[in-house]
Amino acid sequence: MCNGKGEGFVRLAIDVMGGDNAPDAPISGVLAAMEAFSNVKFLLVGDENKIQRYITEGERVSILHTEEVIEPDDEPVRAVRRKRNSSMVLAAKAVKEGKADACISAGNTGALMATGLFMVGRLAGIERPALAPTLPTLDGKGFLLLDAGANMDAKPIQLLQYGIIGSIYAEKVRNIEAPTIGLLNVGTEEGKGNELSKHAFDLLREAPINFIGNVESRDLLEGVADVVVADGFSGNLVLKSLEGTAASLLSLLKVELTSTWTAKIAASFLKKSLLGIREKMDYSEYGGAALFGLKAPIVKAHGSSNAIAMLHTIRQAKEMVEKDVMLQMSTKVKELNIEEME
Amino acid sequence: MCNGKGEGFVRLAIDVMGGDNAPDAPISGVLAAMEAFSNVKFLLVGDENKIQRYITEGERVSILHTEEVIEPDDEPVRAVRRKRNSSMVLAAKAVKEGKADACISAGNTGALMATGLFMVGRLAGIERPALAPTLPTLDGKGFLLLDAGANMDAKPIQLLQYGIIGSIYAEKVRNIEAPTIGLLNVGTEEGKGNELSKHAFDLLREAPINFIGNVESRDLLEGVADVVVADGFSGNLVLKSLEGTAASLLSLLKVELTSTWTAKIAASFLKKSLLGIREKMDYSEYGGAALFGLKAPIVKAHGSSNAIAMLHTIRQAKEMVEKDVMLQMSTKVKELNIEEME
Repeated sequence: MCNGKGEGFVRLAIDVMGGDNAPDAPISGVLAAMEAFSNVKFLLVGDENKIQRYITEGERVSILHTEEVIEPDDEPVRAVRRKRNSSMVLAAKAVKEGKADACISAGNTGALMATGLFMVGRLAGIERPALAPTLPTLDGKGFLLLDAGANMDAKPIQLLQYGIIGSIYAEKVRNIEAPTIGLLNVGTEEGKGNELSKHAFDLLREAPINFIGNVESRDLLEGVADVVVADGFSGNLVLKSLEGTAASLLSLLKVELTSTWTAKIAASFLKKSLLGIREKMDYSEYGGAALFGLKAPIVKAHGSSNAIAMLHTIRQAKEMVEKDVMLQMSTKVKELNIEEME
Repeated sequence: MCNGKGEGFVRLAIDVMGGDNAPDAPISGVLAAMEAFSNVKFLLVGDENKIQRYITEGERVSILHTEEVIEPDDEPVRAVRRKRNSSMVLAAKAVKEGKADACISAGNTGALMATGLFMVGRLAGIERPALAPTLPTLDGKGFLLLDAGANMDAKPIQLLQYGIIGSIYAEKVRNIEAPTIGLLNVGTEEGKGNELSKHAFDLLREAPINFIGNVESRDLLEGVADVVVADGFSGNLVLKSLEGTAASLLSLLKVELTSTWTAKIAASFLKKSLLGIREKMDYSEYGGAALFGLKAPIVKAHGSSNAIAMLHTIRQAKEMVEKDVMLQMSTKVKELNIEEME
């Protein structure tokens, strides 16, 4: 979508009011990205009084002023319908109107999914969009999980589509050759699982991807597959379980290591090792969670994103635009005639 | 079931050949339980040559000899049908024939579920049995998760039954007054989730239990509810995700803390703190995972159980028998006429 219209530039609309650290983190991320990528233009959507403290309009930066914001606890669909001048909705609208090639927000995830559907629309051939974050693995490579919560009652054919579009993303954006695709399931053997996963297994096995069969949630951090396919309900449960368990254990570790003076002193010698663990569980460097299956990249940055995480999310959106990933996904799904398989 | 038949004794059939540490751990657990509980008789099922190295028959111990064993990687249903003289099947058969009040195995989980269904049978009123382990929480209280993998395609009414029977178990066996019951879901707000969880929410809200609404997988280790209700597919994914993430992080911690001499020395001063973390994540003291919904307690001890874990599992089975928990579950479900609600 960047070809032509942006005259060689990738044009990103940024909701600078979304996320725990807004507008500081989104704008600082944009400033860093201006240095890092010379071919990106930014449309910053939000309160211009706040934005102008950091950055002024110029050749590569424009500001779209609005004071309306979708809050983290707003009911998503209602918020999108009522807050038509919110920074998130206006950022997506810029994509719809061809003024931007992609949009990024660290705000309310449900609202961003609804905004994407309403404003940008589904890609032909993709039945239901999927939310696709890249999660950390201990070896630092990470894996793509889709769907992480966009489509609660998925059908087997939708999981097949996720396998195919996930494979395209891993190959084109993450530069993994013949990425391994696994189906999230309760056991590795064929025939395991519920009706949905059994049926999806049969479809994925026949797909032109590097399908390695079922993968178990206990092996995800070990990097068992490059792409893990799940229905949105299961994917969300496992995503939050990984995050929650890691957070609980790290906070427990902190309590234990500061419980006595001996522990505190010993722990001070381990600072580097302990930070290393925290870093391995930090997925900001992998970028945000893109919504796959919309006409243009709509990318959710983690709510707690700092400037570095925003920078990585910008890089991710830029690459998705440059490599025209959405079009490739749509073409592949249509070429395989997947909709007729059911 | 212990009333009368056992003449004041609780009679437990133990598959001594199941689990990673068999027969050492099961038999050592029995020896410890003989000391701890004076009112329990044991039927040890397995290879008598191996058993007699540890223990001989007596007033409270009998041995049922068999050399056939169900292996961890045997296909469950086929194994149960073909290995009719396996230690696991014979232990369950003893319950069926009224020679034991409950049965314990640390062997193949799927096979034990199938054995329970085939040999012991469903309790009247409970549509589908659930596997119910108690998982650790950081405060040491633990929570009951059901279903952790017995019933892959659950219906809303089955989740309602899990809430009710889980509440009875938490109250009677774990001695928690008015236990809190949560529904595993992708968000805490009402209306979240897939069709199954939305429908189950409506049923659980009307049930005579202390239902606290939806709970998220990220909050499980923090002890967000005493009982967490899930369909078997989701429950199993989350169970393995918790276990896997904790195991991965602890092994990562070990690597980091032994990576340099400084780290090794500093870590040696932290041994107690670090062991404390491992202990908090260890759920052997909570006993095994009981199958709820069968006519008698069939309890799965963790595959890696040591003697202490087996002892706790024996205590758990004993209490389930003494308090006639299965009968109470059945009575309650019938009294509430739950089967007619759908």
